[in-house]
Amino acid sequence: MFTTIIRPRVSETDGMGHINNTTIPVWFEAGREGIFRIFTPDLSFKNWKAVMVNMNIDFIKEIYYGMDVEVYTWIGKVGNSSFLVKEELYQDGHLCARGTATYVNFNQATRKAEPIPQSIRDQLEFHRREE
Amino acid sequence: MFTTIIRPRVSETDGMGHINNTTIPVWFEAGREGIFRIFTPDLSFKNWKAVMVNMNIDFIKEIYYGMDVEVYTWIGKVGNSSFLVKEELYQDGHLCARGTATYVNFNQATRKAEPIPQSIRDQLEFHRREE
Amino acid sequence: MFTTIIRPRVSETDGMGHINNTTIPVWFEAGREGIFRIFTPDLSFKNWKAVMVNMNIDFIKEIYYGMDVEVYTWIGKVGNSSFLVKEELYQDGHLCARGTATYVNFNQATRKAEPIPQSIRDQLEFHRREE
Amino acid sequence: MFTTIIRPRVSETDGMGHINNTTIPVWFEAGREGIFRIFTPDLSFKNWKAVMVNMNIDFIKEIYYGMDVEVYTWIGKVGNSSFLVKEELYQDGHLCARGTATYVNFNQATRKAEPIPQSIRDQLEFHRREE
Repeated sequence: MFTTIIRPRVSETDGMGHINNTTIPVWFEAGREGIFRIFTPDLSFKNWKAVMVNMNIDFIKEIYYGMDVEVYTWIGKVGNSSFLVKEELYQDGHLCARGTATYVNFNQATRKAEPIPQSIRDQLEFHRREE
Repeated sequence: MFTTIIRPRVSETDGMGHINNTTIPVWFEAGREGIFRIFTPDLSFKNWKAVMVNMNIDFIKEIYYGMDVEVYTWIGKVGNSSFLVKEELYQDGHLCARGTATYVNFNQATRKAEPIPQSIRDQLEFHRREE
Repeated sequence: MFTTIIRPRVSETDGMGHINNTTIPVWFEAGREGIFRIFTPDLSFKNWKAVMVNMNIDFIKEIYYGMDVEVYTWIGKVGNSSFLVKEELYQDGHLCARGTATYVNFNQATRKAEPIPQSIRDQLEFHRREE
Repeated sequence: MFTTIIRPRVSETDGMGHINNTTIPVWFEAGREGIFRIFTPDLSFKNWKAVMVNMNIDFIKEIYYGMDVEVYTWIGKVGNSSFLVKEELYQDGHLCARGTATYVNFNQATRKAEPIPQSIRDQLEFHRREE
């Protein structure tokens, strides 16, 4: 599991006085850096392989400016060429948002999804959790 | 159905050379302004009522800078206090992303969801589509 | 002069209830698309030439969600390899922000600024205004 | 002086392959949290006092995804009701951007700038640096 501490920014709030819902996908993406590194160790865009095909987020509780947030990121099911990322966001001990993201292992040259190689599969397995 | 034309911005692209996936929730939210006006005609934040509880997006095709995008937004199922928004995003005639957003009719004073009043229900019905 | 109409988004507001100041550089950049096209007619990133070296913005009046904004963009002084962009933002007839941006004509291959060619100079001249 | 470590996000890059210039104002704003706390210790928006009137940024060197950034923030000249913030951004030991931001001590109730109280002046002085 990956843990990412995020400090909310004024620019991430909205007129309702708390964090805007479109900020959460940004934070969840930030929490996936460790996964991106498994697919593209140098994080270079020309070698980038992990491409998102679905995101799903439950908004459970309002998130406020002025207090850090923890994002927990782990791997769920791993298929042939795709895999599921699971994520939870806490602030002040409360679960505030929960999401999944489905990624495929994409080859930019052929522009096709490819089977996930065994070496990457092993690393994903290390970050996998049943629930 | 609401139609919103959006011009992609350089700042909305990412290092892969196309629109970053976290931009799509921003554009879909922009496409819901007509719905926000049904709940809060003056769009003032202190009277705001439509609060998101879930977002789900399928990313189907890459979206590019340099060509306008159309966002189509309509109403799906309407429940007692919640309702479903459906949305599709096209660029150059291709469906590039498709999503749903679940909102509740939220009372900021009591901090509770409330039944959707009939007058609002009638307006939502006007923008409802079976599929 | 280029005119760009921008519809403010909920995600661009902040907890103070109006548009966050970090949104203005995004809108001003959006207003420069016509200038980017002069340097890179196909707007492709691999041929991109206009690179910003300075931005300066005066924030004059609060900007609100719920009403369109007009961004006016024109060319000021044109130097050997650099040029000045001037911009103003109005909402409801009021000047709300005013800025300048300095760009250079940058060659990505040599990674150096280059003199602005005469053909581009002519097009910039067309959008130049004394003040 | 305030030091803020920021981890660049994929969503903050653009098609050129590095951090988009509109991200820098967001990071500089994040670096000012310590200053916002001096004016509004609970960081609540209804008591917010520090309002920006000018931002000026020099873009010196490209900033990349994949390596942390340090933002240094300090106080320059303090006037009667306004003050100057100075900021520098480094990545991998290189100065990449440098900026100033002018703020006023704003009273939301009267909607007027007010003299900066002595207690706040003393705290600003603590973070002041000649150059």
